[in-house]
Amino acid sequence: MSKIAVLGYGVVGSGTVELFYKNKERIEGKAGKKLNIKYILDIRDFPFSPYADKFVKDINVIINDDEVEIVAEVMGGLHPAYEFVRSCLEKGKSVVTSNKELVAAKGYELLTVAKENNCNFYFEASVGGGIPIIRPLHQCLAANEISEIAGILNGTTNFILTKMIEDQMSFEDALAMAQSLGYAEKDPTADVEGHDACRKICILASLAFGRHVYPDKVHTEGISSVTLEDVEYAENWGGVVKLIGSAKKLSDGKILPMVRPAFIEKSSQLSAIDDVFNGIMVKGDAIDKVLFYGRGAGKMPTASAVVADIIDAAKANGTSSSQTWEDGRDVDFIEDFKQDETSMYVRINCTNRDKALEEINESFGDVKYLARKNQDKNELAFVTPSMKECEIDKRLSDLCEKGIKVIGKIRVFDF
Amino acid sequence: MSKIAVLGYGVVGSGTVELFYKNKERIEGKAGKKLNIKYILDIRDFPFSPYADKFVKDINVIINDDEVEIVAEVMGGLHPAYEFVRSCLEKGKSVVTSNKELVAAKGYELLTVAKENNCNFYFEASVGGGIPIIRPLHQCLAANEISEIAGILNGTTNFILTKMIEDQMSFEDALAMAQSLGYAEKDPTADVEGHDACRKICILASLAFGRHVYPDKVHTEGISSVTLEDVEYAENWGGVVKLIGSAKKLSDGKILPMVRPAFIEKSSQLSAIDDVFNGIMVKGDAIDKVLFYGRGAGKMPTASAVVADIIDAAKANGTSSSQTWEDGRDVDFIEDFKQDETSMYVRINCTNRDKALEEINESFGDVKYLARKNQDKNELAFVTPSMKECEIDKRLSDLCEKGIKVIGKIRVFDF
Repeated sequence: MSKIAVLGYGVVGSGTVELFYKNKERIEGKAGKKLNIKYILDIRDFPFSPYADKFVKDINVIINDDEVEIVAEVMGGLHPAYEFVRSCLEKGKSVVTSNKELVAAKGYELLTVAKENNCNFYFEASVGGGIPIIRPLHQCLAANEISEIAGILNGTTNFILTKMIEDQMSFEDALAMAQSLGYAEKDPTADVEGHDACRKICILASLAFGRHVYPDKVHTEGISSVTLEDVEYAENWGGVVKLIGSAKKLSDGKILPMVRPAFIEKSSQLSAIDDVFNGIMVKGDAIDKVLFYGRGAGKMPTASAVVADIIDAAKANGTSSSQTWEDGRDVDFIEDFKQDETSMYVRINCTNRDKALEEINESFGDVKYLARKNQDKNELAFVTPSMKECEIDKRLSDLCEKGIKVIGKIRVFDF
Repeated sequence: MSKIAVLGYGVVGSGTVELFYKNKERIEGKAGKKLNIKYILDIRDFPFSPYADKFVKDINVIINDDEVEIVAEVMGGLHPAYEFVRSCLEKGKSVVTSNKELVAAKGYELLTVAKENNCNFYFEASVGGGIPIIRPLHQCLAANEISEIAGILNGTTNFILTKMIEDQMSFEDALAMAQSLGYAEKDPTADVEGHDACRKICILASLAFGRHVYPDKVHTEGISSVTLEDVEYAENWGGVVKLIGSAKKLSDGKILPMVRPAFIEKSSQLSAIDDVFNGIMVKGDAIDKVLFYGRGAGKMPTASAVVADIIDAAKANGTSSSQTWEDGRDVDFIEDFKQDETSMYVRINCTNRDKALEEINESFGDVKYLARKNQDKNELAFVTPSMKECEIDKRLSDLCEKGIKVIGKIRVFDF
């Protein structure tokens, strides 16, 4: 019998407890042993819960109970989750978590503490909700040299963009709708500005490339400046706008991680991932590419991943997993994103259209012009050839001096 | 140090050896120990291979060498692969295989022998080539009660159907093209008639539902009778024709597995899986649905899965996996497919169109008529409402007696 403690009884915590008891027999079968939840930690009272007798408010009850072998941290946020998790690992308890903020900030440290104490730190639920990605990446694709990972990692922004694309809703209206449906928080910053996707690509990149990628090293742009006009131009170009988190390994061994809205061609599998769904593409030298698709958030999908980790922790029987990576804090291994080659969609305003066309053609050579309904005669939109982003910046800044005003730009992402 | 033997040096075998030595350091890192290939079994001579010194022709050399801990069976076919694998497992050697025919026919038996001898029998490569599916299904989705699995499991037929849909090639021309590109064998029966997809859905269903589903219990139809007219009607209906292998759990606990061409709506993720790619959807009570997509065959993708299994076998360190199921030979747990409810696309010939329309409407009620270019005036195509297939058969047979001749029918699959 392995005893479990669940830290936090919010959406994911209550889902974890519910799923555990719903499928307990199956779960124990897979784990090969009896399991039970001994404690649920929450500062709130739940007197009418069927699990009322399991609630505790003091983490030390859990930390100091040697019967507790597995801890599921599903409270979210960095503090006090970090202190709780670290203390549990130091006591040799395996910890499973859905907390991407924690893993992105402290993954290396907590994996190291787990290893030192011969227990495990698992985080399948931290990326892609119920979609299996962490374990397949580590285990099933273990024979591959991974060259790139890219995905739609945030359901909230994908829902908003889908509404903009399919129903011509403005960003503000789509955000309000997402909030009313419970897909977006009252303060939507973490989703909308790309921070959530950034944490997830940090975790995936750390695992795939073996060195901790910290969020503050990742260039991150959200979708709040994406307009309906951009969406229309993307359609005319033959694609859609998606928020993409990606990380690739460069030929010199450096890593280039980034989060940004991007034009994606309709022929890409990523373009068809709509609403709150997530999709993650992995490129490897043997498998070419594989895609993992499903619900990237939500109570039960996330609980599914948490409970799968609980099963693995129970099966590990005091052995520590090889799922780990090195530190990356003081290592120069992140390439400046401005050095990356990309095509760029650019939307400009000008006073003299013919002159602007001439200047743009002279500056960029072979550009592809895009059109939209009701396009203002002083507005132009085009996609540049592929070149270093710093070079694109330079040329656009030269055009600016000639009275051509850039009012929007979005990178083209080819996968 | 774990020593490995590779049985068979064909496409997958040579890929496995190549990938192993290409990424040896990474693979050993993941396995947590040194690994090496000691033997390669093949009846042919490879005097100029860099691994010439490893080749043996007698399986007993491998079976009787206690140094060999892991055997990769990549020869294909049922015999002598079955005898070789069984003998290796009886000696306590873990076996990994890409051989779907073997797993579909003998999975239960070989898993049992592995368990008895405290070793492992892994087969990630037997379904979906390089796509992680067996382990995610067993491990990452372990907390779920799986209700249905459905997928495009055969790349050859998917390539042929894609050519029919996108380039209006006939089945025969598309098959010839697949053969010239090396996607289809000289004798394409196993692919084209659905046997390959059948073996794969047997493996997935056995794992998901816990009881061995044997291929001879699965209703299997291939794509050789799918015509360009059917493809056109599917387009008009708003979908595509795909070869679908599926298995679902019914409310009475029985399993309904099937392989057949099907109309799939364009809004389904499965409809966008083209060319030689495979895609597998899994429905569970917690995760809702997830999709796994990638290259379902080919030298290196399949080798990727074989080597991942080798790593897992090396890590298992003499413990036997919980990845297993019960026998299903003498158990009545497969539902008759004629009892399943489905909509059906039906294409008919008649002599009196108005009379036929009247008869069809009277028989089926609310049908949806489809159109195609150059449709003969004596031809009608429609999609029936959902009802038991035996009921559809009965009504079509009644129509037949009234001079309405069914010249094509394809089930509608909704996922």
